Amino acid sequence: MLGSTYGSLTTHSSPARVVACGATPPHTVHGTAAPPAGGPHADGSPAGAAGPDLDVSGRPLYAPVPDLDRFFRPGAVAVVGASDSEGRPNTGITRQLIAWAERVGARLYPVNPGRDHVFGLPCLTSVSDLPEQADLAVLLVADPVPVIGELADAKIRFAVAFASGFAETGASGAAAQDRLAEAVARTGIRLLGPNTNLNAFASFREDLDGPAIALITQSGHQGRPVFSLQELGIRLSHWAPTGNEADLETADFLSYFASRPEVGAVAAYIEGFKDGRSFLLAADRAARNKVPVVAVKVGRTEAGARTAASHTGKLTGADAVVDAAMRQFGVIRVDGLDELQDTAALLARARTPTADGVAVYSISGGTGAHFADLATAAGLTLPALSRAKQDELHQWIPDYLNVANPVDSGGHPVGDWRGRMIIDALLADPSIGVLICPITGPFPPMSDKLAQDLVDAAEQTDKLVCVVWGSPVGTEDAYRHTLLGSRRVATFRTFANCVTAVRAHLAHHRFTAGYRSPFDDAPRTPSPSARKAQDLMRPGQQLSEHAAKQLLRAYGIRVPREQLVTSAAAAVRAASLVGYPVVMKASAPQLAHKTELGLVKTGLTSASQVRDAYRELADIARHEGIELDGVLVCQMVERGVEMVVGVTADRLFGPTVTVGLGGVLVEVLRDTAVGVPPFGEDRARAMLRELRGHALLDGVRGGPPADVDALVEVVLRVQRMALDLSGELSELDINPLMVLPRGQGAVALDALAVCH
Amino acid sequence: MLGSTYGSLTTHSSPARVVACGATPPHTVHGTAAPPAGGPHADGSPAGAAGPDLDVSGRPLYAPVPDLDRFFRPGAVAVVGASDSEGRPNTGITRQLIAWAERVGARLYPVNPGRDHVFGLPCLTSVSDLPEQADLAVLLVADPVPVIGELADAKIRFAVAFASGFAETGASGAAAQDRLAEAVARTGIRLLGPNTNLNAFASFREDLDGPAIALITQSGHQGRPVFSLQELGIRLSHWAPTGNEADLETADFLSYFASRPEVGAVAAYIEGFKDGRSFLLAADRAARNKVPVVAVKVGRTEAGARTAASHTGKLTGADAVVDAAMRQFGVIRVDGLDELQDTAALLARARTPTADGVAVYSISGGTGAHFADLATAAGLTLPALSRAKQDELHQWIPDYLNVANPVDSGGHPVGDWRGRMIIDALLADPSIGVLICPITGPFPPMSDKLAQDLVDAAEQTDKLVCVVWGSPVGTEDAYRHTLLGSRRVATFRTFANCVTAVRAHLAHHRFTAGYRSPFDDAPRTPSPSARKAQDLMRPGQQLSEHAAKQLLRAYGIRVPREQLVTSAAAAVRAASLVGYPVVMKASAPQLAHKTELGLVKTGLTSASQVRDAYRELADIARHEGIELDGVLVCQMVERGVEMVVGVTADRLFGPTVTVGLGGVLVEVLRDTAVGVPPFGEDRARAMLRELRGHALLDGVRGGPPADVDALVEVVLRVQRMALDLSGELSELDINPLMVLPRGQGAVALDALAVCH
Repeated sequence: MLGSTYGSLTTHSSPARVVACGATPPHTVHGTAAPPAGGPHADGSPAGAAGPDLDVSGRPLYAPVPDLDRFFRPGAVAVVGASDSEGRPNTGITRQLIAWAERVGARLYPVNPGRDHVFGLPCLTSVSDLPEQADLAVLLVADPVPVIGELADAKIRFAVAFASGFAETGASGAAAQDRLAEAVARTGIRLLGPNTNLNAFASFREDLDGPAIALITQSGHQGRPVFSLQELGIRLSHWAPTGNEADLETADFLSYFASRPEVGAVAAYIEGFKDGRSFLLAADRAARNKVPVVAVKVGRTEAGARTAASHTGKLTGADAVVDAAMRQFGVIRVDGLDELQDTAALLARARTPTADGVAVYSISGGTGAHFADLATAAGLTLPALSRAKQDELHQWIPDYLNVANPVDSGGHPVGDWRGRMIIDALLADPSIGVLICPITGPFPPMSDKLAQDLVDAAEQTDKLVCVVWGSPVGTEDAYRHTLLGSRRVATFRTFANCVTAVRAHLAHHRFTAGYRSPFDDAPRTPSPSARKAQDLMRPGQQLSEHAAKQLLRAYGIRVPREQLVTSAAAAVRAASLVGYPVVMKASAPQLAHKTELGLVKTGLTSASQVRDAYRELADIARHEGIELDGVLVCQMVERGVEMVVGVTADRLFGPTVTVGLGGVLVEVLRDTAVGVPPFGEDRARAMLRELRGHALLDGVRGGPPADVDALVEVVLRVQRMALDLSGELSELDINPLMVLPRGQGAVALDALAVCH
Repeated sequence: MLGSTYGSLTTHSSPARVVACGATPPHTVHGTAAPPAGGPHADGSPAGAAGPDLDVSGRPLYAPVPDLDRFFRPGAVAVVGASDSEGRPNTGITRQLIAWAERVGARLYPVNPGRDHVFGLPCLTSVSDLPEQADLAVLLVADPVPVIGELADAKIRFAVAFASGFAETGASGAAAQDRLAEAVARTGIRLLGPNTNLNAFASFREDLDGPAIALITQSGHQGRPVFSLQELGIRLSHWAPTGNEADLETADFLSYFASRPEVGAVAAYIEGFKDGRSFLLAADRAARNKVPVVAVKVGRTEAGARTAASHTGKLTGADAVVDAAMRQFGVIRVDGLDELQDTAALLARARTPTADGVAVYSISGGTGAHFADLATAAGLTLPALSRAKQDELHQWIPDYLNVANPVDSGGHPVGDWRGRMIIDALLADPSIGVLICPITGPFPPMSDKLAQDLVDAAEQTDKLVCVVWGSPVGTEDAYRHTLLGSRRVATFRTFANCVTAVRAHLAHHRFTAGYRSPFDDAPRTPSPSARKAQDLMRPGQQLSEHAAKQLLRAYGIRVPREQLVTSAAAAVRAASLVGYPVVMKASAPQLAHKTELGLVKTGLTSASQVRDAYRELADIARHEGIELDGVLVCQMVERGVEMVVGVTADRLFGPTVTVGLGGVLVEVLRDTAVGVPPFGEDRARAMLRELRGHALLDGVRGGPPADVDALVEVVLRVQRMALDLSGELSELDINPLMVLPRGQGAVALDALAVCH
């Protein structure tokens, strides 16, 4: 590894590639928007779709899997700028590329007009002199742009640009990067970089078999811990150090890796996204193919997001939205690189679980109790073993020890023939899919034997066997040789990482078993509501409450019976039509904080109260200098759970739908959940379960349960509106949406809508 | 280590030692209640206190530090039941004790009437034959009870009982353990065990110096990872494997270790407590002495608590209460044994921080961004470096790299003389107290040099230098030798554990700097309110709302103006005295769910409404078969923040005070905080800050801030009531307490009180 290529990767997106939320024209995302030429959607795109696969918001519903076989395993490689002069950085890179080419059996051609030979190989003046068609050109030149045309002429499909000094250095570098991006877009060449490194051509251990981890990182350093897993016996198949992502981005590699048979899991370190939709489509591909994706995504905090953004120039996205997007598509988000390693290693290698039940087995009641506590807190299920199973275990374990689960062997049985019997008996239990054995300290007469028994037993079962080797030392034989030598036992160093990985494993299989791609059902054409809604739009303005409610009505969302009136007499007539008691509210475009201004009157029960209220509202408005377009006389709806449902435009993922607990709670507790379109009813229901206060919907203090079905329907209709009107509607906020008792629906009592 | 003594430790408390919450007679906690004989409270107990140091609830306010010097470092040791017959478990233990005695320079005397010699040492028939007074007797006999009297006659102060078969095996074992506990209580001998092991006599590395970790565990296995830290160069001074805690308990060792000069931090693995108050007093001792205590406490979940309880027979306590108790006394609670190791190791060795600011320095912008994100999310402060400091750093670091903090060196400067300059410049910054350098992968030309520079720089500073060695392999020289070889650099393997430990370190110093023991101010005699309150108590009953409010009034807690009436006419008279609008509520002892039954009428504005309401309430009560003692006519208080304040009896810690967000929220979100008496105003304020919805108290939607001072005062008065009436009051629930705008106080609108 050369110092010069082992620096930090800083990257920058071309602004042209960002999904501008709400922009009307369809985005033509280079290389992803068009369905494959070779036939109609052989690749998982929706059947029967005609024309470009775009949804109603103009974004792609389909992305082909880029064929990167020849990128990672080229037959012939040109190294442009190859050097063997002592002291030049390119010399070290050239040397390593030659070694790599020999290892993988690629023919390497140095290209450098200034040299006859490089490291003994004849050197070409230009790629036009290549004796065969090369698959890949490694560009070691400071400015790769002029070379791109030559590569295209030589029909070279892939290039890597190592040069730094692009977007990571500031504005002029960003402009240079844009020129590079344009050059590759013009030629169709797929480019990795610029500002990348040799990681893609690293030395992968060939002696490991079984499903592998494929690695994607936006920083070379941040990928090294996962790469180092090979030294612990975990197979790696690929490493994509995406650099500045002028062309090929994280999503391209994700989608490619998720389609490779040798890949058991994809591990990713992500600082920002070049494009939200392309990431979702790649994650969708992985979910369809049941390939687990484990990712660290920087940006939990504002400060972290800022630092990452200034480092990568990519969009970090609002973290809650990123989190929701990942969850919707089954991407397992973790925080630490150690969790990334341990979770990806487990998911790459573990087989489909036969049951969700976890058995915890240890030689110490304390260890079992502690592990069970953490596992249960994390949501794992430790089923109590049947009486018959407990009796069976008590053949080998003293009667006074607890074997209900966690199972405490007390230690001694582990040291002899009984040890293996206990393990086999646990693995034979049909309620158990995972056996976890925490070993907190090495005590060779017990721990070595226990480790060997677990390794042996794991060879005889499809069930998952996990060991936590708790010693902080880590040089013990039982750990280094017995446990890490097994391809069937998953070995951890901490309780926490074992719990995280097992939970992710079980959740991944549950998720993919029931996965249905939301892209299959995403709307392609505007709904009939859209036309009516578009008439209500007022570009650049906030709509009046009345107009906003008409918008909701257009999408079949119930609003209270109400009338807009402009006189006290009309108010009284309206009240008798609407039905007492009524609420009266001042109505004007751009009007916010009505309650605080005293512009809402509730619980009016008579014509005289209505008449007085009208006058009072008019007085306040006059006093505040507000030009009313009238006063709303509304049906009063009291009994229900106050929720909020809204639309927010995310820079990365476009319009998103938020649902939360209404009233003062949404302001104080921010108890909200996000849905990233496209999503279906299952996601809408899951959003409600994510609310901390979701029990409010079940009914409290003996009250009736709320009409959750109606709430879900509102969320889905709001999504439809957000997609239909992505070019026109910038923000929507229904607050409160009163969710009535079950069977009675939900009513939007107030709404705020802002147009682009 | 012998298999026979390396089994699981299961323990049991003697019921006589449990603080029965609310029991009136003062507890005489064996060995802890009496102040030291040698003078008045030389040891930190409250000055000027007379008589037994008990608080008003009868629990000790003071516990002397047990002198365990001769337990851990005895001059002479008797081994009762010593053996050298092949194949007997005692033989192995005897052999190890002989080796241990030689190592620590103790004279060891085998005692066994059946033998002349044991391992060549002359064997005594009984401890009465000892040629000198022994400090410690190790009892290897199956039933230690008959030996205790002999030990007392021989003036032996300490004993260890290895035998198992006590409380961990069931009821008859528990009875045997009670007999053992009585025997030692009678003689004054301090006993470790039964059902303990050789851990206390383990081989501690003598070649390590500096402050040490002292270890307390309720399971031998669970202590091994911390013990193994010695192999990584971390010094350990003691290990107390508390076993069944028939006599000596976790608190005794905590208090002793916190008073030893060589102990830098105490690490504890706790499944349950023998006594809540003794633990608090020991933690108070550690806080006064500024010795950090890091603890894993099992029982995050009900399932975990159940398993731990069945394992130890100790009281696990309600987890929220345990959590609050630990927080109040500065005990750092962690979840994993790896966190326990890493946090204790850091806190034992790090010096007092000069500043809270953390600088993150890495050779990769990605690593810096990622670490900064996690650190900030965990509450660490990364101050932006001054422009001057950044200019200084840019002498050595390329201009386009971010050095504001996190500091990205880009890699190259690390490899030469500039590397050390950068580190020294960061350590010289007065805003920086902690330098953290995450190294995600070994790349010897950089990482070895970087590690050595950090180790060298750490020798020259009092500031804390942390390294995260991110490689999962852990056999690299830079890690094993350079970093672990330094006593000044704290080395971690994961970002998360580094962040957890540094946060704990900074928090510990903030906490102890401002620590004032709540035991110094705890009430010793009943307040004047207590007499009035006691007259209201009705043993075994729930008080009527009216009586419960009189109880509050006795403690100076405001309640609405209200009258209890028994006729409609009286209700109308009461309403005009109380002032309209009024609330009317049915009143009866044992009455709950008034609102659900329709037994509350609000917003009554006229005599006729009051009259109607009275009749309606009477009708409902008659229909429901409720015998009313009258109807409450109460002042209506509308504007404020609804809170709840209550008292709950915890099995372990006695009466505790809870505060939370009121109304439906406390039922749905359970947003509450607990205070464990005794606590002061600072804790009461901290409880409010712990509420997720605490912003409600700051005023929302432009509303005024709530009268937090009044709320704090109510919390403290409720604590006083709980202590005064610990024998009489089993439960109190003020719901809602309406906290009015600042300066206007707080009013208890409803209250429920249950007597013992």
